[in-house]
Amino acid sequence: MARCPFPPAESNPRMAKILRVNLSSQTISFSDPPDYCVGLGGRGLTSAIVAREVDPLANPLGPKNKLIFAPGLLGGTSCANSGRLSVGAKSPLTMGAKESNSGGQPGGHLASLGLLAVVIEGVGQPGQWLQLEISPEGVKLAPCQAGGLNNYDAVELLQRDFGPESGYITIGRAGEFRLAAASLAMTDLDGLPSRHAARGGLGAVMGSKRLKAIIIQPGQRSQIPLYDQSAFNQAAKRFAKALTEHPVCGHSLAEYGSAAMMGLFNEAGALPTRNFSQGRFDQPEALSGERLNQLTKSRGGQGRVARGCMTGCVMRCSGVFPDRLGKRIGKWPDYETMWAFGPNTDISDLDAVARYDRLCDDTGVDTIDVGAAVAILMEAGVLRFGDAEGALAAVAEISQGTPLGRILGSGAAICGRVYGAVRVAEVKGQALPAFDPRSVKGQGVTFATNPQGADHTAGFSYAANILGLGGEVDPLTPEGQAELSRRTQVSAAAVDTLGLCMFVSFAFFESPEAVDAVVDMLKARYGWSLTRADLDSLGQKVLALETGFNQRAGLTSASDRLPEFFSHEEVGPHRVTFDVPAGELDRVLRFDEKI
Amino acid sequence: MARCPFPPAESNPRMAKILRVNLSSQTISFSDPPDYCVGLGGRGLTSAIVAREVDPLANPLGPKNKLIFAPGLLGGTSCANSGRLSVGAKSPLTMGAKESNSGGQPGGHLASLGLLAVVIEGVGQPGQWLQLEISPEGVKLAPCQAGGLNNYDAVELLQRDFGPESGYITIGRAGEFRLAAASLAMTDLDGLPSRHAARGGLGAVMGSKRLKAIIIQPGQRSQIPLYDQSAFNQAAKRFAKALTEHPVCGHSLAEYGSAAMMGLFNEAGALPTRNFSQGRFDQPEALSGERLNQLTKSRGGQGRVARGCMTGCVMRCSGVFPDRLGKRIGKWPDYETMWAFGPNTDISDLDAVARYDRLCDDTGVDTIDVGAAVAILMEAGVLRFGDAEGALAAVAEISQGTPLGRILGSGAAICGRVYGAVRVAEVKGQALPAFDPRSVKGQGVTFATNPQGADHTAGFSYAANILGLGGEVDPLTPEGQAELSRRTQVSAAAVDTLGLCMFVSFAFFESPEAVDAVVDMLKARYGWSLTRADLDSLGQKVLALETGFNQRAGLTSASDRLPEFFSHEEVGPHRVTFDVPAGELDRVLRFDEKI
Repeated sequence: MARCPFPPAESNPRMAKILRVNLSSQTISFSDPPDYCVGLGGRGLTSAIVAREVDPLANPLGPKNKLIFAPGLLGGTSCANSGRLSVGAKSPLTMGAKESNSGGQPGGHLASLGLLAVVIEGVGQPGQWLQLEISPEGVKLAPCQAGGLNNYDAVELLQRDFGPESGYITIGRAGEFRLAAASLAMTDLDGLPSRHAARGGLGAVMGSKRLKAIIIQPGQRSQIPLYDQSAFNQAAKRFAKALTEHPVCGHSLAEYGSAAMMGLFNEAGALPTRNFSQGRFDQPEALSGERLNQLTKSRGGQGRVARGCMTGCVMRCSGVFPDRLGKRIGKWPDYETMWAFGPNTDISDLDAVARYDRLCDDTGVDTIDVGAAVAILMEAGVLRFGDAEGALAAVAEISQGTPLGRILGSGAAICGRVYGAVRVAEVKGQALPAFDPRSVKGQGVTFATNPQGADHTAGFSYAANILGLGGEVDPLTPEGQAELSRRTQVSAAAVDTLGLCMFVSFAFFESPEAVDAVVDMLKARYGWSLTRADLDSLGQKVLALETGFNQRAGLTSASDRLPEFFSHEEVGPHRVTFDVPAGELDRVLRFDEKI
Repeated sequence: MARCPFPPAESNPRMAKILRVNLSSQTISFSDPPDYCVGLGGRGLTSAIVAREVDPLANPLGPKNKLIFAPGLLGGTSCANSGRLSVGAKSPLTMGAKESNSGGQPGGHLASLGLLAVVIEGVGQPGQWLQLEISPEGVKLAPCQAGGLNNYDAVELLQRDFGPESGYITIGRAGEFRLAAASLAMTDLDGLPSRHAARGGLGAVMGSKRLKAIIIQPGQRSQIPLYDQSAFNQAAKRFAKALTEHPVCGHSLAEYGSAAMMGLFNEAGALPTRNFSQGRFDQPEALSGERLNQLTKSRGGQGRVARGCMTGCVMRCSGVFPDRLGKRIGKWPDYETMWAFGPNTDISDLDAVARYDRLCDDTGVDTIDVGAAVAILMEAGVLRFGDAEGALAAVAEISQGTPLGRILGSGAAICGRVYGAVRVAEVKGQALPAFDPRSVKGQGVTFATNPQGADHTAGFSYAANILGLGGEVDPLTPEGQAELSRRTQVSAAAVDTLGLCMFVSFAFFESPEAVDAVVDMLKARYGWSLTRADLDSLGQKVLALETGFNQRAGLTSASDRLPEFFSHEEVGPHRVTFDVPAGELDRVLRFDEKI
């Protein structure tokens, strides 16, 4: 077992280490962060390592790709909602730089061990699944007995050896099959694999390396070094207060989960329905945050509202959804999941949505991309729109490895190609999430231009377009969308680098105090001198790292476009198309140019 | 019915017309060739129209793509082997400019009607298959009763109305399903749909337009205007003589078909075996041109050697292969087909190869890409290497539209993604044909850099690498390969533009007299003044049109690379990797730079 240097003795981030695990040679080593990693965490760090160390032409499933885990800059601290874990690699879905982050316990646990990042290199031998065990005592690779299991069974098996306090990162069958929509699961506060770094097929990268699981036994979070403990604690309190006092962050999310948005977007005519053929769903009452809350309470049993997914969460959007007998089905389905297996597939059964969510969590696939693939099968006539049972049976085939299951597990873009579909809502191979780009045009600009592909967390332009948070920009006209998208993409990249839950953005947009509190925490954590503007510079730097990698990987502005049908097919009720000029799209992430 | 202006009255190529058929509006029109089409035919013309008229970002299966048919510059004349028909579009397989050409009767027939090109625009209505009828009397669109049929049945049905003398271009079920490896079938001298524009999924483009068939009743070839009839006839005789006196063009091909190459490449250690894991096959006697000839003769019945596929063929590589009872199975399988369903899948049964070839011809798919996909399924353990019956059953699923069938019909690259495969031999989404790029490195350079993707007709570098034709370049070292590849790619682009069968290249490489005869025919056909060097300029121009389109479509030098495993996995018996430097690859088609 490789001995490790944590907990680090000092607050200098150079003292924290990068753990490298090479699965080809089965070697483990620690190193100081190279210069290009200093001052970065989370998405910033994974993207910096991808940009610097991964051959842009590498096969994403081959030995030259690297899979990188990094807690955010505030990871493991008492800062509210700071426990996200970023996962980065060259994506087998988008073929570009990818960062996907997740809540759950592993992020904070890694930070508590003084680890800046874990870099998985090389590939293991076929036919032999491995697990990586990380604890205060050291790090080792071992054969994994959970090969062939889906996430829930795998975690249950591993917990027999490593107990309920460890954090678990696993892949299900989809990751083992190296499917392009495969996720990595991370265990939540209940020790269940309900949180996922879902987008971009990073589970397939983990599968390609024959790494089934990472088990992290935490260190003492209290030992995470702080440059100025008292200042940190004060700023952390201000930040928590800003969150809890915000109507969305402090109330709606806990009451209704992210599904609180269903009604708003439906009202706005921006809820993609029947594979993006309509902007409004005709059964809004069946799928909503209110119904989620009400059913959870009325069914009782193991159901629960206002549950967080990780230590330190004050927003608590992640309830537990029970079936009719009160037995836990899974976590509260997020807005995008409820959309994907709801309006977009014309399904209006909340229990079916919850079963879908659980099935995807267990198999280890992205609910957005797989749901979008289901909608394509429906449009192709393979399934019937609204057929929840048929769709669930098809999704269940993913973990059986049938041809249909593999197609679905490869996500919407590949499914669309196999079925010769023209109306496939994807950018850079990644499915569009639950916002119609024609009627929330700021979001459309983000889907087109973000280096991650169409991504639900790449920037909340909808806040200004629909919610009236952080300004107001008419969602239906092309004016001002590119500028709005730039602003929200930069903000999102910074938030992801800090390791914060993206939902803090709602408070950021409205409360300079919330942003200042974060700046003060960074100062107090690292002893840096920093202003609010530095967070924007950080976000820009991260996006530039990702776009630079993508360019070297062969992506051009041709990849920064929405599918053709959004430009010529009007969506109701507003009868709009996507009409933001290409020239503006091309300038969104050129930060030296005005839009 | 739209009246048409043919046959044209004069030899001025501007008098020949471009026929445009818009399936969205169901309109038909004729026009003079625009300036950018003048002086071009075949591949040069289809690529010029793609480059100029197709939005590089168009969805290949959407209304903005165009499907273009063009006989070559010598099409329809008495020039030997001049009847190839080029088909062009933006490819749903490579996402770049595509030209795929085919023998058979339609090319000569179109030329005989004074048509420079047929341009299919827009898309028809779902649920309604159409046919395009072209005859000396005029052109019309009509509902097609052959929808749902594969090629053999479709042609048989259409022949009841249009007789044995018409030429037929059809798609099978694969094209109807818009699968990315779908071909277009063209009828041969026997009126059977055995010749295919197979590569790049152009059958899917035809399917996306709801066009099931094109029926061409020929005009009088003797009416094709010649600037100088006597000079033309003399040059045509010299050319035919050069071909018939050449050992390959005049002898081997008629005796053994293109499968004559099996033994040569196996001997050279360049015959990809078991999904490119070996360079030599252990049962060379089972699959060879000699065995093809011997079985055909010994079984008698409908079997036949030395059959051409089109009027005017003097090389006659296309025999008819009979089963054990003497009944026709299909045409002689070409070298690449015999490789794909032979060494690369470890199948050593010539009857199985012939059945595979017939099945692909009937379903309307590319034997190379589908065979490469089968090899991937074998490597993934879905099928067993060598299991001919299992593989045939899987390929038969294509026309049933099952998930597995659709995966196979989408070709190797997509199949590889669905099965999470790393060892997928493809460039720009198109499967590598029957030459290992590590042990025929000139061919490897062509596969990497040709704008069509890895293509068996993109340039015969192997002639100098292996056959000792047109120079000698050691196939195993990187030196000189880029220059050789440039030369053969330019030559191939010119040959494709002339409408000549690619096999004339063997004579071209060795006989300046053959090239001069072609130059003289062009002069006598059009009244042009022309030298041998102009043919090179023509080839360069065509390649530049294609690479220009590809760049605008978003392809970069990152697309001009072989898959990673060819660089680090040695192939036996020579234990070589692909090691031509990237910088040289990037210069191959930059004609203003020395390599």
